[in-house]
Amino acid sequence: MTARPSPAGESRHGPLALTAAEVARRVGGTLRGDGAVSVRAVAPLGRAGAEEISFLSSAAYLSDFRTTRAGVVLVAPEFAESEGPPCRVIVERPPEAMLKVLPALYASTPAAPGVHATALIGRGAQLGRDIAVGPYAVIGEGAVLGDRVTIGAHCEVGRGVRIGDESELVSHVTVYPGTIVGKRVRLHAGVRVGSDGFGYVYADGAHQKIPHVGRCLIEDDVEIGANSAIDRGSIDDTVIGAGSKLDNLVHIAHNVHLGKLCLIAAQVGISGSTTLGDGAVLGGQVGVGGHLTIGAGARIAGQSGVSSDVPAGETWSGTLARPHRETLVGQAALARLAKIVKELERLVGKRGS
Amino acid sequence: MTARPSPAGESRHGPLALTAAEVARRVGGTLRGDGAVSVRAVAPLGRAGAEEISFLSSAAYLSDFRTTRAGVVLVAPEFAESEGPPCRVIVERPPEAMLKVLPALYASTPAAPGVHATALIGRGAQLGRDIAVGPYAVIGEGAVLGDRVTIGAHCEVGRGVRIGDESELVSHVTVYPGTIVGKRVRLHAGVRVGSDGFGYVYADGAHQKIPHVGRCLIEDDVEIGANSAIDRGSIDDTVIGAGSKLDNLVHIAHNVHLGKLCLIAAQVGISGSTTLGDGAVLGGQVGVGGHLTIGAGARIAGQSGVSSDVPAGETWSGTLARPHRETLVGQAALARLAKIVKELERLVGKRGS
Amino acid sequence: MTARPSPAGESRHGPLALTAAEVARRVGGTLRGDGAVSVRAVAPLGRAGAEEISFLSSAAYLSDFRTTRAGVVLVAPEFAESEGPPCRVIVERPPEAMLKVLPALYASTPAAPGVHATALIGRGAQLGRDIAVGPYAVIGEGAVLGDRVTIGAHCEVGRGVRIGDESELVSHVTVYPGTIVGKRVRLHAGVRVGSDGFGYVYADGAHQKIPHVGRCLIEDDVEIGANSAIDRGSIDDTVIGAGSKLDNLVHIAHNVHLGKLCLIAAQVGISGSTTLGDGAVLGGQVGVGGHLTIGAGARIAGQSGVSSDVPAGETWSGTLARPHRETLVGQAALARLAKIVKELERLVGKRGS
Repeated sequence: MTARPSPAGESRHGPLALTAAEVARRVGGTLRGDGAVSVRAVAPLGRAGAEEISFLSSAAYLSDFRTTRAGVVLVAPEFAESEGPPCRVIVERPPEAMLKVLPALYASTPAAPGVHATALIGRGAQLGRDIAVGPYAVIGEGAVLGDRVTIGAHCEVGRGVRIGDESELVSHVTVYPGTIVGKRVRLHAGVRVGSDGFGYVYADGAHQKIPHVGRCLIEDDVEIGANSAIDRGSIDDTVIGAGSKLDNLVHIAHNVHLGKLCLIAAQVGISGSTTLGDGAVLGGQVGVGGHLTIGAGARIAGQSGVSSDVPAGETWSGTLARPHRETLVGQAALARLAKIVKELERLVGKRGS
Repeated sequence: MTARPSPAGESRHGPLALTAAEVARRVGGTLRGDGAVSVRAVAPLGRAGAEEISFLSSAAYLSDFRTTRAGVVLVAPEFAESEGPPCRVIVERPPEAMLKVLPALYASTPAAPGVHATALIGRGAQLGRDIAVGPYAVIGEGAVLGDRVTIGAHCEVGRGVRIGDESELVSHVTVYPGTIVGKRVRLHAGVRVGSDGFGYVYADGAHQKIPHVGRCLIEDDVEIGANSAIDRGSIDDTVIGAGSKLDNLVHIAHNVHLGKLCLIAAQVGISGSTTLGDGAVLGGQVGVGGHLTIGAGARIAGQSGVSSDVPAGETWSGTLARPHRETLVGQAALARLAKIVKELERLVGKRGS
Repeated sequence: MTARPSPAGESRHGPLALTAAEVARRVGGTLRGDGAVSVRAVAPLGRAGAEEISFLSSAAYLSDFRTTRAGVVLVAPEFAESEGPPCRVIVERPPEAMLKVLPALYASTPAAPGVHATALIGRGAQLGRDIAVGPYAVIGEGAVLGDRVTIGAHCEVGRGVRIGDESELVSHVTVYPGTIVGKRVRLHAGVRVGSDGFGYVYADGAHQKIPHVGRCLIEDDVEIGANSAIDRGSIDDTVIGAGSKLDNLVHIAHNVHLGKLCLIAAQVGISGSTTLGDGAVLGGQVGVGGHLTIGAGARIAGQSGVSSDVPAGETWSGTLARPHRETLVGQAALARLAKIVKELERLVGKRGS
């Protein structure tokens, strides 16, 4: 029996190949050597073989370059004449150029359209054209899936949920009722979207649960990393703005509004009712308090704790985050302080006496 | 085929409705306007429609209030006469009052009783009355489910596990063998309960695994957020005390004992064999070291790192957490220090010469 | 119907038993009392019964020892004569000695070999001898499972993935295509292995996704805790070295290389392209920046933020981590500073006037 679709896609050695001449044309580079040499995959210089392409952009890898068995190498101009394999393509910024090569070699395997025999489709659910629903997926009553949507194995799409065209739920994803997912969204394995927020009122000797009836809106072109959890709103909605990207194990609380094109690194936690402007960037493990506003384009360094509003465009850092420059000054002062504090105590002590 | 039960469920627009007069009676407020106006849902002022109820408790929203299309609005006494829609209920603390309205409009959809045809029930498992077991759920041998238990899609309940009356496993939950779950417990999507603790002894050139044979006890009325993980005990038990609430992505290590009514915010990590007294509150991303005691009612600020015991009732904060007041004094001193340290160095330097 | 295999499993009261004489022989201790007393489980002194074995290694538990109902107790030499139950085994370091008792009482229940009727096996997949594949597991096309591999309920093994002999995927595990898992590896519930890394290039008004075509290599004898996520490499590979152990909710980014025998505590996050030497130890919630090198045997204290290379064998700590000794000096200086800063300001102010 065929298990299909399998998760997140790219196969390692597809049937695809490129010649060195085609590579040079794709990246807009200059070919040196035999344009007919053919490659089928990408690998680092150290372990690339004759049918693989690699790149050299740093002097640190010149020794790997001399001995590499790679069929073709993208080489930065300053190393154009360095000793190494004969077949090379000279191009600015080889790593970025490689992005134009990858799609040609690693075409994503589209999940074959169709609903797996073991998938369960709830009453009244609407399925778009060319969708792929994997084994043991469960689609709730009245859910609406757009065209070319892919639902991986074991995903659960709650009652009444809407998922836009070309979105993909990789596997083991839970989408709670009350959630709307836009187009071209990718939710990685284990993502939870629309779970209840953490809200209680203490009364009668217990933490009484606040019902959550707001929605969870995931706009177009969002990608969310493995095992992240996005709560639904309490009365208002939780919104992840179009084009925003979230890494693994991120926590987004109820009523949070992310603007468009935000970048949220792994293990970030954002507390309830906080707003991020467009293009805000949070480093890994950042924590943001509740009811705050992070301005558009603001950048917060990894592991910072944000407990006040951050103006648009500024870079902040630190445990009680403040402008990065101030944090650096404080850190430097502290480092120097240790050396003088004993002397200071003597000074102060003497004056006190 | 009907996929049922679907996850965590409140539907957004149920068949239920309340008149303005009924709202006033429920919240103990004073009706202004037409008591026959009927509402079916809750929404923020900015996007509420004629069949929705909203609330006004802050002057920040007075302009939304003037233009709202909400059918009924709960209004704090100080805004009783403000310009806005005619049908309003004057009441203290509108957000709390709303908690009395929500259950009437969003009755949770009870999962229809029954075991889905695709659910697998292990040999010797005992199922209480009116339980609901969703599609593809797997119940281990000898497991015992109380009355009115709901097991969502794809959940796995391990061999011999006991789950008390009216508890709900939302979806994709794993309950390892050796776990006992109380009554009225709710485990959100992706929760793992009873996994092995992180314990090894280095011997013979490898980290030898310490077998984990303690239990994992989740007492009554506990709620655990999406993708959290609670380890079982090594020899002693791990205990989550009655009425405690844990947010998303929380880590609880082996042999931890949480008292009753604790509140544990998202992404908190508690190391092995640590004890929390009743009513302790940990902010988001707090880390607590192993073998510590956090006293009853203690409060730890977000992102703090706790490496010593915390007395009952105290509020602590900071990377090496200490009483919050001390942390503030230290922070303030540091902020002022940067301005004087250069001068201090000159002072100390001069005296040293 | 039998749900099998169930997760991670030691049963609490197996059919196994040991006499006190056998216990003494196993741990190399000295028996006092009736060697024929038989025990079947381990429990703390406070709740052990007649058929259970416990241990005493600290004076803090002497009162529990006096009243325990345990059938046999492992007792440290200094308490050999203390008042308590008659049947005891005198031995150095009772907790470690207990590790020799546990396997005899809690033989892990091997999952009965076989492929559950509901498991889906992809075209061309190869299954080793004596494997156990649980209910609703999905094995992708061309995957290769070694001998005695256990795949728990609801796991998904991607297309072309290889899993070595005797490895176990507990339940709800996702293994993306492009992953190779070694021998005797244990992946706990909800682990994601081989997910796309967090890599984008901003162009044409959007964050363009960098295709991920590197592999994710989990070497032999690795254990990974519940709900952790390990990304695949972008072009190079992500590698988790042999014998390394990762706790719950850990994030490992693309191209990270962990050496052998590393210990990674819960909620650690390691950014892209960072390398850890053999035997490195990271405390809970540590964050490590990208493109760094943590030397062999280095130890990082919990919640530290590492933003520079760490030499082999050193112990570092702190928000901007540096050698632990320096962090302690800085902390101490800061604590003393608060008491003198006002006086210092007066000093500096006076001199300035």
